[in-house]
Amino acid sequence: MADLFFPDAGLVRETLEPGRVSRVVRARGGGLMMVEVLFEGGAAGAEHRHAHEQVSYCLAGAFQFTVEGETRTLKTGDSVFIPASALHGTLCVEAGRLLDIFTPQREDFLD
Amino acid sequence: MADLFFPDAGLVRETLEPGRVSRVVRARGGGLMMVEVLFEGGAAGAEHRHAHEQVSYCLAGAFQFTVEGETRTLKTGDSVFIPASALHGTLCVEAGRLLDIFTPQREDFLD
Repeated sequence: MADLFFPDAGLVRETLEPGRVSRVVRARGGGLMMVEVLFEGGAAGAEHRHAHEQVSYCLAGAFQFTVEGETRTLKTGDSVFIPASALHGTLCVEAGRLLDIFTPQREDFLD
Repeated sequence: MADLFFPDAGLVRETLEPGRVSRVVRARGGGLMMVEVLFEGGAAGAEHRHAHEQVSYCLAGAFQFTVEGETRTLKTGDSVFIPASALHGTLCVEAGRLLDIFTPQREDFLD
């Protein structure tokens, strides 16, 4: 059986922008992938699109989050749905963490 | 455009077992649904199966989590993948919260 349990302690934290943005791929399987992204204040996730559907949950901090031209502030406990191919991006206004879940899996995160 | 943003403050907390287990449906759309489940210590989510794939993230507390006969303890930051139709359940051993994401959406949670 493929791994079903993904203890935090066993996962790799990948630096995307040194000292600013890093990522941990968490539980995944079938059509689902969970990814935590850690931001320092002032760091951005540039606007982009992908064919995957996404939901994101703010674990900590504060983010200006834009989807298809609509911007809101996400704080701990707030969440957002990103339709397939919707333009979206974020600016971290207070150091924090987002939990992103994709369907299908982001194969581009596994290289 | 359907709602994309799901501020915590605007969501309904539904009691499943009075004083023991409650649920908040968070961001959802397309093939994704995010649901937070709040447990008191000693409360259980009885073993069950569903056709939906699921990933779960431990937001707080501690849970004995069983999938297809394999049991592990989940603490904050730990996560698990539940394949479609896999038998799974949990016992909360320290009051806490799980963030469950399903594909497709759990239409049975919307009644």
